[in-house]
Amino acid sequence: MSTSRRQLRLGAFLMATGHHVAAWRHPGSVPDAGINIDHYVALARTAERGLFDQVFVADSPGVWHKGDEESFRRQGRVSHFEPVTLWAALSQVTKHIGFVATASTTYEDPYLLARKFASLDHLSQGRAAWNVVTTSADNVHGNFGLAAHPDPSTRYQRAHEFVDVVKGLWDSWDDDAFLRDPASGVYFDPAKVHALNHVGRFFQVKGPLNIERPPQGHPVIVQAGSSEDGKELAAASAEAIFTAWTSLAEAQAFYADVKGRLPKHGRRPEQLLVLPGIFPVIGATQAEAERKWQALQDLIHPSVGLNTLAPFWPLEDLRKFDLDARPPYYPELTPGVNSRAHVVIQLARREGYTVRQLYQYLAGARGHWVVRGTPQTIADRMQEWFENGAADGFNVMPPVLPLGLDEFVDQVVPELQRRGLFRTAYEGRTLRENLGLARPESRYVTTSPTAAHAA
Amino acid sequence: MSTSRRQLRLGAFLMATGHHVAAWRHPGSVPDAGINIDHYVALARTAERGLFDQVFVADSPGVWHKGDEESFRRQGRVSHFEPVTLWAALSQVTKHIGFVATASTTYEDPYLLARKFASLDHLSQGRAAWNVVTTSADNVHGNFGLAAHPDPSTRYQRAHEFVDVVKGLWDSWDDDAFLRDPASGVYFDPAKVHALNHVGRFFQVKGPLNIERPPQGHPVIVQAGSSEDGKELAAASAEAIFTAWTSLAEAQAFYADVKGRLPKHGRRPEQLLVLPGIFPVIGATQAEAERKWQALQDLIHPSVGLNTLAPFWPLEDLRKFDLDARPPYYPELTPGVNSRAHVVIQLARREGYTVRQLYQYLAGARGHWVVRGTPQTIADRMQEWFENGAADGFNVMPPVLPLGLDEFVDQVVPELQRRGLFRTAYEGRTLRENLGLARPESRYVTTSPTAAHAA
Repeated sequence: MSTSRRQLRLGAFLMATGHHVAAWRHPGSVPDAGINIDHYVALARTAERGLFDQVFVADSPGVWHKGDEESFRRQGRVSHFEPVTLWAALSQVTKHIGFVATASTTYEDPYLLARKFASLDHLSQGRAAWNVVTTSADNVHGNFGLAAHPDPSTRYQRAHEFVDVVKGLWDSWDDDAFLRDPASGVYFDPAKVHALNHVGRFFQVKGPLNIERPPQGHPVIVQAGSSEDGKELAAASAEAIFTAWTSLAEAQAFYADVKGRLPKHGRRPEQLLVLPGIFPVIGATQAEAERKWQALQDLIHPSVGLNTLAPFWPLEDLRKFDLDARPPYYPELTPGVNSRAHVVIQLARREGYTVRQLYQYLAGARGHWVVRGTPQTIADRMQEWFENGAADGFNVMPPVLPLGLDEFVDQVVPELQRRGLFRTAYEGRTLRENLGLARPESRYVTTSPTAAHAA
Repeated sequence: MSTSRRQLRLGAFLMATGHHVAAWRHPGSVPDAGINIDHYVALARTAERGLFDQVFVADSPGVWHKGDEESFRRQGRVSHFEPVTLWAALSQVTKHIGFVATASTTYEDPYLLARKFASLDHLSQGRAAWNVVTTSADNVHGNFGLAAHPDPSTRYQRAHEFVDVVKGLWDSWDDDAFLRDPASGVYFDPAKVHALNHVGRFFQVKGPLNIERPPQGHPVIVQAGSSEDGKELAAASAEAIFTAWTSLAEAQAFYADVKGRLPKHGRRPEQLLVLPGIFPVIGATQAEAERKWQALQDLIHPSVGLNTLAPFWPLEDLRKFDLDARPPYYPELTPGVNSRAHVVIQLARREGYTVRQLYQYLAGARGHWVVRGTPQTIADRMQEWFENGAADGFNVMPPVLPLGLDEFVDQVVPELQRRGLFRTAYEGRTLRENLGLARPESRYVTTSPTAAHAA
């Protein structure tokens, strides 16, 4: 194995009981995962044993749900830890793994957010990352006194300003501001403290932050939106992007698109890592993987499944359908409107899916890239994407947790290592160092001739 | 020792390098304490070894400082962890100690705050407490786009509503809402989830919270203001109150005052613990304690000391004074205005203090109750306050950390135990259980005849 070979990056997307919609009913899951700290301790340690770069949780400041009460009460994702507190807790029982916490630029405050992520970076000695989201989930705006989310364009304008303010606050104290010299009694150099004095459209923030510069300079900035606005935010400020594609061609197009946006922001392609999600179903044989997948699919309760079909048929009709027959009718769709609905209905007709087969298809992995097979075939697919301009690494989304992460670490990681695609030891101390991302200089650093020479 | 004897409560107030204003210059301190997680791990473990009920940090979302730049750069409290993230980290390396985090009702949001404290309570399995503050420190309002703090009355009105909203959100899910039954596929009972639908003067909050009811029902509510508004907020909603008095008589008056306010809120005296601060300077002999105290006082840099006299003399005059002579003049004070200034100047005249003696008197312990002596004499004073209607326990403020906490745990705690005043093992699993505070019922519990009978 050549040490100079390009290495793929791995993140573990820790969705409480697992990514399959019915994961919490599976015997390999922990049903109260969302508030079970022992579960997360075990997951973080497994990810670290597998030399993953980072663990990640999605988030929204409201109860996750869309649909009727029958499916609501079967929803296993309604009660869960707040991400930054969760990762702070895990910082003390791990040494290497990075922590990606999702937090909203629409519903949080930049001073408080800058502070808590700086605190997490110090607590973890340089392993914090912020997944910047503008929040479009249901059941959120009412928790903050709003009648609706701000429109997407306003949310993204606010996000740009928010990220800029947060980065500025992280730079409040120069890296060498603190002398802490007991003899002279001088604790820091006031010339190396900077008030931000930001006055913008959305925020006025004086600063300085009441915590010194994070060990990483800035926690790593992650972005996960794939809209036009999301891609622009990523190109302007993100260092990793989580994305969801189910075909190589789509993933390649996205990869080329976002990497191509970097130069106009004065950035190089390697400064933004593209990490598609992969939902691996691992078996000793292909047949075993298929059986495991079908067993999971069969755990989807019909009321949860039918809820995923509610955009296409009225729920009162769906409840009368024979689950194991084809739908008695297909909806008339207005051409050009709701392209996803057209795709789904075409598929249902073409494949002759029963109602159950159709909702299993839609609900199970919630649209993510499902790869079923042996460790070797899964590694094949990852290698294909990695070596063909579709990915710099992957956000691994185990169907069931902890089971699926154990399987991936024990079976797929060694296969990737044998191929020379993945590390056999952590390279650095911080998340940035492991991801191969440079430590950002402070915005207040003036590159003097001497400094430039030294660099 | 009778097991039924009233036991005193102990909290450790962990002010980074210690409570003495010059603590960070002392060889027994850790100068970078504010961002040194190993330091806090050691402190929390020491407090737990000493069977303390809780650890506590003060907080303000801005840089702590008042005064000129000469004293600013000697200030050791400008860079520190955010409290909730700090306690979340420590939750995984301790088993019994409770965690009191300060957070502001003026500058935080109730949904986000309710969520992070609920998360901390789950992470620590029932050891979280919230010190409710309205924030009056300098260097804060500008971080949140305000020209000044809201006035105290508005801040306290907001605080009452804020606490009510937070408690309501903690009750979003009944204690028995979650079935998590894989066989039936039912995760929870929707009849046991409650949207708050709060509409008030300051907040509109729909709910429900996206995390289930905390293990303690509600994290313990703490309050620390001693103004009229502060005492009313404590009487209405707090379960412990931190306070600062330097004489038994003042402490007794305060104790009687706040306990006397409880009945009109339908509460009993034992539902609010009064915990004065104590700043112990421990020696093997009284003379050794006095020497240790003077050594600390001598670490106060003149520019820091003179800054504490700036309310009384102009700084440009102070800088010309001979530190080891009496002030060359005393300010003329307008009768009836600034009573603290009158007390200070009277004291300076009466005692014939030199400039240095006067600023050491004012600056060292920042107005807190300094008790210098042997472990026995310190225990005597604590027992006197505890048994004479002045305290239910104490918030211990070691002058230097970690040194002062080690000394207290190794020397004063055993003395309190010998006297039967303090536990020799933790009584409960949660902070509430150790403090002897009942777990609050949900606001949505309707006491049916059966339930009343069962209770």
